[in-house]
Amino acid sequence: MRAALFDSGVGGLTVAKSLLEHNLFDEIVYFGDTARVPYGPKDKNTIIRYSLEALEFFKNFDPDILITACNSVSAHALPELRKNASFPVVGVIEPGVVALEKKLQDKDAHILIIGTRATISSHKYQTLLKKRGFHNITAKATPLFVPLVEEEIFEGEILEAAMRHYFGDMRPDAVILGCTHFPLITEALKSYFGQKTLLIHSGEAIVEYLQEQFPLTPAKNSTTLKLFASENPEKLKKIAQSWLGR
Amino acid sequence: MRAALFDSGVGGLTVAKSLLEHNLFDEIVYFGDTARVPYGPKDKNTIIRYSLEALEFFKNFDPDILITACNSVSAHALPELRKNASFPVVGVIEPGVVALEKKLQDKDAHILIIGTRATISSHKYQTLLKKRGFHNITAKATPLFVPLVEEEIFEGEILEAAMRHYFGDMRPDAVILGCTHFPLITEALKSYFGQKTLLIHSGEAIVEYLQEQFPLTPAKNSTTLKLFASENPEKLKKIAQSWLGR
Repeated sequence: MRAALFDSGVGGLTVAKSLLEHNLFDEIVYFGDTARVPYGPKDKNTIIRYSLEALEFFKNFDPDILITACNSVSAHALPELRKNASFPVVGVIEPGVVALEKKLQDKDAHILIIGTRATISSHKYQTLLKKRGFHNITAKATPLFVPLVEEEIFEGEILEAAMRHYFGDMRPDAVILGCTHFPLITEALKSYFGQKTLLIHSGEAIVEYLQEQFPLTPAKNSTTLKLFASENPEKLKKIAQSWLGR
Repeated sequence: MRAALFDSGVGGLTVAKSLLEHNLFDEIVYFGDTARVPYGPKDKNTIIRYSLEALEFFKNFDPDILITACNSVSAHALPELRKNASFPVVGVIEPGVVALEKKLQDKDAHILIIGTRATISSHKYQTLLKKRGFHNITAKATPLFVPLVEEEIFEGEILEAAMRHYFGDMRPDAVILGCTHFPLITEALKSYFGQKTLLIHSGEAIVEYLQEQFPLTPAKNSTTLKLFASENPEKLKKIAQSWLGR
């Protein structure tokens, strides 16, 4: 099977990493829209327009499934993508909520959702969590974490000041990492919130979700990864080599 | 006279403000490419491509001059814009250097240039300063300041930590604010570097430069400002109302 994996930039490689580790597909075609990144502060209509352009690109590869690694795309563009695709389109938001529910039985637990402005203002996570009976929910747009990760700042005083700015003395039971960049600051978040806090990672969540929802037989050989970027493909390749070790 | 004013987003309104205060034009047509902002981390070729698209848009208004408020555009796209325009195209980099030289006679002075990755890596400021005999130059990409300003963080511990991260104990004689966002953190930079440090602001520099280089007669009536954005024009309008008071 061939999966198309769409992200606004390089962050979706954190999702690619989980998919590769579980060898779910024969081939993954990754496209990062690096020439127009970030999507997080952009309008719904712009995100939909860019996503449909990416879909046209992916159609050349005849994929069996399209996975939108980017939470901002998953929050806003799934209905339009599904209308225009002849294959299943899966986002990361529902898988994240499903993964959370499996690990957290207590419906009174305090759940913190962090993400870009586009993701948080869509209310998609909030609505799905409420449907499943969770009611103690805080949703917080944390846009500064994206450029910090892009600057390879994964620890230290700027990040700590940013966490204090966003979270104060908040101590949630679970945090949904609603942006592909955030798995890279997992350690900093854990030491801020405490080791007991449950962190939900889109990459791990989507692997479980695909295994349950789609009849996938693991690929015989290790997954082939094809990388495309709308600018600076060399940077994407370099980060892939560093993050994925290949 | 009608001026076209191009920026990657809303930051160029700091330049619009200076132009409006001096009433240099009858009309300013502002275009912010908010759907693809920021340009600062992007490739030279992408910046040129986006700039040429903006030029086509401006041609509909038959401008007498095009001013690129964005330093990343000024650093990379001026030759291509000039090749394709039938009117003068002026960037903010040369005006900034000219303004600095007027205020700073000491060629041994320590000059710090701060800007986006695209601006700093173009070496445009550095080259012009060296031609004019300055030799004690530090150029520093400070990309985190852009999202901080976008988050309306103009002071406080995150910004202070970011300044320590970029500058340490550096105490330059002059700082060139090589990004339209940075005039908004003037106060923070002054209190970090000390009140004696000379700060060069693109908006003020371009006004002086235009007055000297072009035969401008001040407009009879106050300048009309037309605002366009590639997405979310409402946000641009709102910020214009707040920053420009109109």
